[in-house]
Formats: sequence, structure tokens, C-alpha cells
Amino acid sequence: MNVAITGVTGYAGMQLYSLLQEHIEVDVITVYQHDLTEPVSLAELNPRLNLAADDWAYPYDSDAVMADNDIIFFATPAGITSQLAQPYLEHNFPVIDLSGDFRLKDPAEYQKWYHQDPAKAADLASAYYGLTDIYENPGMTYIANPGCYATATLLGLAPAVMCDLIEPDSIVVDAKSGLSGAGKGLSTASHFSQANENLQVYKANEHKHIPEILAELKKWNPKVQQLQFMTTLVPIDRGIMATIYAKVKPGVSEETILAHYHSLYDENPFIQVYDQTLPDIKSVLATNNCKIGLVYNETTGYLMVVSVIDNMIKGAAGQAIQNMNQFFNFPVTTGLELSQIAF
Amino acid sequence: MNVAITGVTGYAGMQLYSLLQEHIEVDVITVYQHDLTEPVSLAELNPRLNLAADDWAYPYDSDAVMADNDIIFFATPAGITSQLAQPYLEHNFPVIDLSGDFRLKDPAEYQKWYHQDPAKAADLASAYYGLTDIYENPGMTYIANPGCYATATLLGLAPAVMCDLIEPDSIVVDAKSGLSGAGKGLSTASHFSQANENLQVYKANEHKHIPEILAELKKWNPKVQQLQFMTTLVPIDRGIMATIYAKVKPGVSEETILAHYHSLYDENPFIQVYDQTLPDIKSVLATNNCKIGLVYNETTGYLMVVSVIDNMIKGAAGQAIQNMNQFFNFPVTTGLELSQIAF
Amino acid sequence: MNVAITGVTGYAGMQLYSLLQEHIEVDVITVYQHDLTEPVSLAELNPRLNLAADDWAYPYDSDAVMADNDIIFFATPAGITSQLAQPYLEHNFPVIDLSGDFRLKDPAEYQKWYHQDPAKAADLASAYYGLTDIYENPGMTYIANPGCYATATLLGLAPAVMCDLIEPDSIVVDAKSGLSGAGKGLSTASHFSQANENLQVYKANEHKHIPEILAELKKWNPKVQQLQFMTTLVPIDRGIMATIYAKVKPGVSEETILAHYHSLYDENPFIQVYDQTLPDIKSVLATNNCKIGLVYNETTGYLMVVSVIDNMIKGAAGQAIQNMNQFFNFPVTTGLELSQIAF
Amino acid sequence: MNVAITGVTGYAGMQLYSLLQEHIEVDVITVYQHDLTEPVSLAELNPRLNLAADDWAYPYDSDAVMADNDIIFFATPAGITSQLAQPYLEHNFPVIDLSGDFRLKDPAEYQKWYHQDPAKAADLASAYYGLTDIYENPGMTYIANPGCYATATLLGLAPAVMCDLIEPDSIVVDAKSGLSGAGKGLSTASHFSQANENLQVYKANEHKHIPEILAELKKWNPKVQQLQFMTTLVPIDRGIMATIYAKVKPGVSEETILAHYHSLYDENPFIQVYDQTLPDIKSVLATNNCKIGLVYNETTGYLMVVSVIDNMIKGAAGQAIQNMNQFFNFPVTTGLELSQIAF
Repeated sequence: MNVAITGVTGYAGMQLYSLLQEHIEVDVITVYQHDLTEPVSLAELNPRLNLAADDWAYPYDSDAVMADNDIIFFATPAGITSQLAQPYLEHNFPVIDLSGDFRLKDPAEYQKWYHQDPAKAADLASAYYGLTDIYENPGMTYIANPGCYATATLLGLAPAVMCDLIEPDSIVVDAKSGLSGAGKGLSTASHFSQANENLQVYKANEHKHIPEILAELKKWNPKVQQLQFMTTLVPIDRGIMATIYAKVKPGVSEETILAHYHSLYDENPFIQVYDQTLPDIKSVLATNNCKIGLVYNETTGYLMVVSVIDNMIKGAAGQAIQNMNQFFNFPVTTGLELSQIAF
Repeated sequence: MNVAITGVTGYAGMQLYSLLQEHIEVDVITVYQHDLTEPVSLAELNPRLNLAADDWAYPYDSDAVMADNDIIFFATPAGITSQLAQPYLEHNFPVIDLSGDFRLKDPAEYQKWYHQDPAKAADLASAYYGLTDIYENPGMTYIANPGCYATATLLGLAPAVMCDLIEPDSIVVDAKSGLSGAGKGLSTASHFSQANENLQVYKANEHKHIPEILAELKKWNPKVQQLQFMTTLVPIDRGIMATIYAKVKPGVSEETILAHYHSLYDENPFIQVYDQTLPDIKSVLATNNCKIGLVYNETTGYLMVVSVIDNMIKGAAGQAIQNMNQFFNFPVTTGLELSQIAF
Repeated sequence: MNVAITGVTGYAGMQLYSLLQEHIEVDVITVYQHDLTEPVSLAELNPRLNLAADDWAYPYDSDAVMADNDIIFFATPAGITSQLAQPYLEHNFPVIDLSGDFRLKDPAEYQKWYHQDPAKAADLASAYYGLTDIYENPGMTYIANPGCYATATLLGLAPAVMCDLIEPDSIVVDAKSGLSGAGKGLSTASHFSQANENLQVYKANEHKHIPEILAELKKWNPKVQQLQFMTTLVPIDRGIMATIYAKVKPGVSEETILAHYHSLYDENPFIQVYDQTLPDIKSVLATNNCKIGLVYNETTGYLMVVSVIDNMIKGAAGQAIQNMNQFFNFPVTTGLELSQIAF
Repeated sequence: MNVAITGVTGYAGMQLYSLLQEHIEVDVITVYQHDLTEPVSLAELNPRLNLAADDWAYPYDSDAVMADNDIIFFATPAGITSQLAQPYLEHNFPVIDLSGDFRLKDPAEYQKWYHQDPAKAADLASAYYGLTDIYENPGMTYIANPGCYATATLLGLAPAVMCDLIEPDSIVVDAKSGLSGAGKGLSTASHFSQANENLQVYKANEHKHIPEILAELKKWNPKVQQLQFMTTLVPIDRGIMATIYAKVKPGVSEETILAHYHSLYDENPFIQVYDQTLPDIKSVLATNNCKIGLVYNETTGYLMVVSVIDNMIKGAAGQAIQNMNQFFNFPVTTGLELSQIAF
């Protein structure tokens, strides 16, 4: 199998490239960068990739991509695939899009949150929101890979919302992310002397992942009409912790809640549910796992859910590979049984 | 003025000793340690204090303390002052107690949260809860210095709760603390390889500061009967960020909220209120300040308050000095105009 | 192939277990712990291993080990294998020993540096010092896996010392290590509030890796009779940087030096040599690579070599697997083509 | 006393401003920024300074500076004061220059290391190199405040070099610095995801502080003709550790070395000498101290000196204030008795 990838200078693209290298079903990985006019050495384009000198990156060309590959991954920022997706959609050529361009169905909502021109409504409608731990892809070729915060939050909330266990207007999500989530671009917030020994709340009530989270929650339970969601940068390299608070509905017991979480997730090799034990970020570092811990507070009536992922793997490149596995009917864990590196 | 201090081997005691050294009203600081049988060199007892070899720590003796000093600070863990407070209470000798032993009024509640024997109810009743930015000490000599989380949370909530601006059963506090809050004692959670590059939720619904926070909130507004409060360890040395979520009452505008915060705090040299800007932890590092940022979310109806402090200063030693200043009618900022060390 | 492992509660053992799980030649991994009297759940013994509940750890028994396995790895602290090695040596059963017990040939020297009883001289003589990037194992079954600092330092010095390019009495090594090198045991030096935002020099001139480094250097070039070697703890999880200074011999040019480094390492898939570019620790994080950068200072006549490794992989578990691959004639990179996780 | 300062948007300038605020001899601090055309609010110019809204920054004007102040501090980057110093030199108006522009005496050397136009040779000659812990200012008004690395290194080497205790061609300095030393400007090396969990050697043999260190060493002992000096960025906010290696001269005993260090420094309130104990960076954090530990290795004949400072205080703003104190004959510790904030 031949795979194309564009965007390997960014963090998610680097992680994806690295995972694809070890994927047993992948024979050839070809890099296409849309800012090239002629092939350049990949090792030179991104020295961090640790590549042999004879690997190359090629100018982006959708015809070449489709002629020589079975699938393309876009690890590009928002605003790129909305411009480039057309030929793939026309030819039903498989695309896994790590950007946010095809996650929302409503062009106006995209415009509002991303402050950029959206893709066409018809194109948006033909994209599959690839939250693979929850959904089965019905054969759609354009796969919008979910956002990192969205993945942690949605997996943490799914059983509670789907099974109507919590008060729909009481959900508060306090999400924390390591700095790799802020990307490779230099900024004051990610300057070491600013970010280290610090906590920084950012994009209060304006984070782009809010609408995609809310859209899925509404699908699962139309009573959910809002979401109080906040993001804080913490001085670590990788990892997201979504701490979720919601009031439990009258008559719903702790056992019922746990049973629903276990029922949804116990067959899933990537998701582990804990009762009374709250997972830490390090327990999922460099893995494709999502660990979910539940604590019910009898005094306040609040359920607390702690959902942790590696933002670069489960929150980006790992989930993209899960989507590829799902699309081509490979075993779900192919290429995702990673050696642990944390203690 | 002569001050006594016990507990200088712990972090809060070290910070307190260091601040007292620069306090213009303090002539002599004498250290009493209750595990000594004869004087020992202070530099040897705690090499981190950077002291001359001729400073000494003396065996703890309440008679000597009262004979030679004007006040004593206890920077001891919970469970000590409940045993030692009696003579000071009897003689109305000023005590500033940084431990949790005299913060709660109900012995049974102390027993429940601290799993230790409480002080007597009558003694608890005679202690002043020294949240100095809110209260005036009515001349009480036994001052219970508030907990670090309690300080950040209560200062962040005071105007909203006192002025009945938020739904009393909707308060969620997601508080984060640096590792110095976990103290000097070795533990797995504070082992570098465990704590670094990690976030760890701990003591879910069982943190000892919950009852003191709730007790004050109830005083301010009896409608508040519960508090969903959670603590997360973040890999930084110092600082607390309390992120507070609460639903705004119908008819209360953002302007009203802001006006109440400004009204309560604008004369206070240590508290700064921000609208739409959320303070980061580094902006208060190594200071006695509490910065409070407010953001109202029209879509969800939630107010978010971010309250940041240096846990060792405003959350412990700095507030203790504020309490001393208040008790002796020194200017409030005496000894607390600290040089900034963060950028 | 069946492999036995003992010591999976420590960091190196965890890393080794995790790497062995993905090794294509390994069918069954069995854990033997010498402090057990009956089998216990491995997931319970070490929850960080992310294991299924049906994996078990068994009481250590050398007969069982040899009956059911093809090799055993000891990821135990110094002082264990000196007691346990005998039966394996007698039966020529393959052992890879990650501890320091069999690295030195002279029992008296072991006693001096380790302050413990050594193994017998004859047994020490029969052990192979498994610096696999330099040596070929001549079929010896007892393999002493080199220390982490030793690996970084020896690989950085090998061409210069072997080819007599530097003044033998001018070698200074300033080595820095992340905290995982200090292990899982709680200590003041590895308490977060002590180690974070700090640099700590430790074991000045007393580090146990000094004699094994010096022994190899002497083998390569008898003129080397001493080594000034120092270790500093830096607040990172993983990684070693050995910064090596040595005076270049008169008449030796920069080109000559480079040529010798390239000549020794260019065929090695795990070692990369850089001229004028000095590698950072992150470029080898979570890999089995050693990157070596060289800078010659014409003004001072000093060569500086910067050698970086991941202390847990190349400096421990990865090199152990390299030794297994070498012993069984598996391709050298088997099980060691790891997905990068750093940027 | 009125002091002028320019450069308060950078880290050193911020630290200096903050220290001057608490200096008992300083009545008024006026900020002059050379990129302003009219006064601007200081709180707006640099929100991190925590200032009242009624403080202002004024356009830079040397006449105004001299008319209204007793001294000016330049916390500007290299290349500024070489253009601006003239009027102050002409009027013998006191200047403390934190940049490197007046540290070297030879214009050609400045050109070589700084790649910029130097000040005039005559002007360079009239500047005092303000290493205040070693030198007495003979009344010179233009004070070149030493570099941070230079301060740590020179204080660590002074007794050994002055008293001819070490082989002059054997000095190797491996210096490590926190990221604040890299300044406020955004760069890849100081991007959090690059700098965190990493060690980065930089400016190999090209660091601008090398010539000023060598110049002083030569003054102290003309036999010293070279210096092998290297710098590594470590993921901490503040602090420098200079680890110094040098061969002890034949016949010089450890006691002799110690005696010379104690003799030079024991009266100095800012410098502490340790035998066999090596200070860590945290022990000087947020102070104006330099701690120096010595270890002699009998086997190799090497002396190791570990010299630690806070790069922003002793390495910049604190030493600048020491220079002011020295010039005006204030007690040396005025404004520099800082509360400790590290444990």
C-alpha cells in the first residue's frame, strides 16, 4: 500500500510520518509539500525526521497523488484542504484530513469559529467525522480527523450523554494541554520563559474545537444545547487532560454510570475505564490510548470524568491511522502497538 | 519587635522566615523546634536558609516563647497546634497558625476531613479565620491562616457569592497547584520522574481545604450549600490557579459582576481585577498578589473566574505576615513589597 | 523464542519489557521476581505496564527460567546478579545483565566503587562487556550490558582514543542526565521541588561508571590512564548528554578526526556523526540512536565531542536488545525501529 | 537619588527596575526608551512590571537624563551604547552599562566577536569593568557590567588563576544556563517544545563572553593564554552553573587551594565557598549570591570548581546595583538582601 502525506514540517505531520514508517501495511510513503516547485531532500526539509538522505519531498500535485497512492493524509493547518479537497471528492479518493476544515457541517459556523472561508456545504456534507472509537465509517472516503481536545472530551462524555445520565445544561469541561498542541510556530505564549513554570488560560470560549464537540454531543442527545469549555496551557510537551464536570440526573446511580462506560468501552483496545482512580497524563504518553476515570460526588451530585490522551497520537496522528485501519479493514491496532516510554 | 517561629524545616516555614528577615518591624526572629532537646545551629538544621553560623534553633518551650517574643508563627503540619495552642489561648498571646488545626469551627468536621483529633470546640470558637483581604481582625489573638487553595478560591468567589450574583448550586472549582504545595516530604506523586511532564488529579472530593472554603461561602451567602472542588498537581514549583465556573443568575449583567469585583478589591494593593483578560500564574510568582480575571460566556450563561496566587506567599507565608501587619496595625504592605522575579 | 526478565518494577525493566513486547522474534515474555513466593498479577505488580489482567509474574527460580526460556534479562540493581549468576554460567545459559555486577574484571575494583561484595574473579572473566556498537560478541553467554553514562562516553571517545588522536591525559567529560537515571526510589535529589528548575552535580569523582569507562579506554589505548568525569542531574525525564573535551595531538587535523569517526560509525544504523553541528538530546529521545557531534577549536587546540543518547533505550533496554540480537544473529535493528515521539 | 533606566522591556531591565524599586537610596526611577516619540504608560509598555497606571516611560534624551538624574542604567542589547555613550563620557556622568559594548578594550576584538561596529578605543579605555566582587572602582564613571557567564566563570576561577594554582593551558569551562539568558526574543531554540526536556549546546567556541573572560584571566595571570569555554541551554527559567576543570600545578595541595579561595571571599557577603560540597543552582535562585564549590581529584590531578549564580541578578541586575552601591559608597548589600524563594 502506498500512502501520500502532506504537512510533515508540523508536529502532527512528523508524528504521523513516524508512525506510518512502522505500519506493516504501508509499503511506500511519499511526501508532497504544496510550497515546493521541485523535489527536495526530506532530511533537509525537516532534519528532525531522522531520514536517510535519499528520501525526497515532492511538489504537491493532486493528479500525481492519486496516480501513485492509495490514500492521502493532510496534516496541514486549517484553510488548506478547503481549497484542495475537490479532486479527491470527485474521484472518491481516500483522504484523511487532520485539519479542522471538514469537521463542521455548517459553512457559516466554520466561518464564525475559524475566521476563514469554508468549504462548500455539499462537500462538508460528504465528509465523515472520524471519531473511530465511537463511529463506524459507512464507506465515506473523505475523513475529517477530530481535534485533539474534541477527542478527549467526546470520549469522556459519550456514555453519559448518549445514555442521558447527566443534566444537559450542567456540563463544564476544564481541559489542559501540553505545548505541542500550540504547534511549531513561534509565539509569546509558547516562548520557554513564558510557558515554563506557568499556567496560561487561552482562547476563553473561543476555541475552534468547541463547535465540533457540541455538534457531536447534540447528535448523541439533542437536549445538550451548550457546553462550557475552557483550555489551559500547561508546561509539558505532550498530553491532554479533559476534566469534565456534570450533574448527575436524579435517580441515576454511580453503578449505572459505570456500567454504561464499561459497556461502551470494554471491547475497545484503546480505551480503559477506571472507577475512583483518576488516570494521569503520563499513563497514556506516547500511546494511542484514552484513559477515563470516574468519580461521583454524593454531596454535590456531580460526576467528574477525567479523560487523558496523548494529543499527538490519539489526538492526531494515531487516530488518523485508526481511521486508515478502519477504512481498509486492517486490524484496529495495526501500527498502533507502541512501546511505552513513560514511567 | 521579637517574633518566634516554629516549623522552619518545611517549605512554608522557610518562606516565612525569609520574609520576616526583611520585615522592617521585626528586630529578632527566634526559631523554636519542638523536636530539639538543645540548641542547634540553624544553618545545620536547614542549610537552605542561607544563614550565618551563629543563628540557632532552640527547643520548643511555650513559656520561653511568651517571655521573649511578641508573637509566634506556627508553620507546622496539621495535628500539632491542636496540642500546643492552650497556653497561648490562656494568655491571649498572639499566634499565627499556618496549619489547618483552627480553621474549622466544628470539631466533628475537623475529625472527618483531617482524620485526627480536633482542638476543643471552645478553642476553635476563639480563633479568627485570617482571610485578611476580606476580613478585619476584631482583636482576636489566635489567627488561623487560611489554606492556599482556600485563599485563591475564596478571593475569586467573594464578590459573586456575597452579592448573590451566581446560582449557588452551580459552582465548580478546578484548581491547579505546583508541587511545593505537596510539601517537602518524599512521595511517589512528587517524585520528579512521576510529576514532571504529567498532570495528576489527587484527593478527589477529599481535599482538606474544601470545608474551610464552604464554611466561608456559607457565611457570605447561606444559599451556598455545596461546592464541587477538585485539585490537580501541575509540574511547576510554585503557584495556584483556581479556575471557577458558575452560572450567572438571571438578570445579572456582566457589567454588574465587574462592578462588584472592582468595588470590593480596587482599594486593595494586593488584588487586581481583570476584565476579559485571564491572568497567568507567572504574573504573581514570588509576590503577595492575587490576580482575578473574569470572562462571561453569553452562550452558556457561565461566568468563569481565574484566580492566581503564589501558594507559598499569598497562600501561606505572605498572608501570615499580612495577618501580623493587621494585628499590630502596621501598614498592610510592610514586608510584602517584593521584587518580581518572573517575566 | 521465549525470554525471561526479572526487575520489571524499575524503570529500565519497564522499558525493556515494553520493547520486548514489540520484538518480532519474541514469542513469550515471562516475568520472574525474586521477592515473590507465589504468582501475582503483573498488572498489579506494576500498573504502569498497561497489561491485561491475565499476565503474571512468577517467583524467581533459575531452574524454571532455564527450562522454559532461551535467555534471561536481569534489570536488577547492583548486588543481585553477583549472587544469582552461578547456575547460568555453569550451563552456558544466555544472560543479559543490565546491572553493573559483571562489567568490571577486577573484584577489588568492584568492591571499591560499588561498596558491595563482588562476583568471583573467574566469573567476571567469563563475562562479555556488551558495548555492541563497538564489539562483536565472540559467543560468550554472560553479557554485561554497559552503563548509560559509559555508553554515551565510550561511543563519543572511541575513534579518538583508538586512533590515538588526543592527548591521553587531557580528557574531561562533563555528563548530564535526566532524572530517570536516578531511578524509581524516592530521594531528596529526585524530589520534584528539589530537582525542578535546578542543576545538581552528584557523586563527584565517585560515579560507578567511571571504572568501566576507564577500563575500555585503556583496552583501546594503554596511554589513557585517567579520566576526569563528572555527572550533573538536569530537570528532564530522559536522556544523557556527554560533553567531552580533549586536546588534539600535534599534527592531527580536523579532517583526520572526522574521517576516523565516519570510518568507525558510518555503517552503523544507530550512530550518526555530525561535523560542526552539535546534536541535542531531543533528537535521540525514545530511540536507540547515539548522535555524535564534533567541533574543533583551533585557538585552544581542544576537540569537543557531544554524544547524546536516550539513557533508558541506548543506555539500557535498547542496548540490551541489541545484545540479544547480536547473540542470536537477528538483524541488528530488530525491535529497535521505534517511532519518534520528539520534535 | 534619581536614577534613569533604559531597556525595561527586556528581562534584565525588568529585573533591574524591580530591584531599584526596593532600593532604599533610590527616590525616583525614570524610564527612557529610545524608540518613543512621546511618553507612554509604563504599565502599557510592559504589563509584566505590575505598575500603577500613572508611571510613564519617556523618549530617550541624554540632556534630560543628565539634567534630572544622578545615574543611568542601560539594559540594552549590544550595539546601542556604542552609539549613545559619548555625552555621558564627556560629562563624566555615571553610567552602568549592562550590554557588552564597553567590556572589551580592543575595538578589533569587539568587531570580531560581536560582528558590529565598536565604540572608539579611547572611550573603551575609559570604562571600568565592573566585576565588583573582585575590583574596587577607582572612580571611573562609565561602568561596563560584566556578562552573566563571565561573572560565574571569573568568580569561580579568580583565586586559582591569581595565585597561580593551576596549569594555565588546562582550563575547561562547561557552563549551563537557563532560558532567560536567551532573552525575550522569540527563537526556535527557546520555543517551549524545542527547549523543554532538552539540552542544547550553542555558539560553540563563539560565545561573546569568551573574550571578556579571557581578558580578565590574562590580567590576573599572563600565563593564561586560552580558554576552552562552552555553553549549554538547560530547561530552567533562571540560573547559571559554570563547571570548571583545571589541572592543579605540581606541589599545590588541596588545602592551599581552599585557603586561597577562603582568603579572597570570606569577607564578601555575596560569595560562599564550599569544600567537597557542590552547590546547586536553586541555592542561589533569586539572590545576588555566588556559591562556589571545590573538589580536588587526586587520581586525575584535576580541580573541579562549580560556580552558581542567578543569571538575572548576580549575572546582570544585581551586579549592576552592586556597581551603583560601590560608586556611591552605599553599603554593598543595599537593595540586595532579597527574600529567598527557592527551597
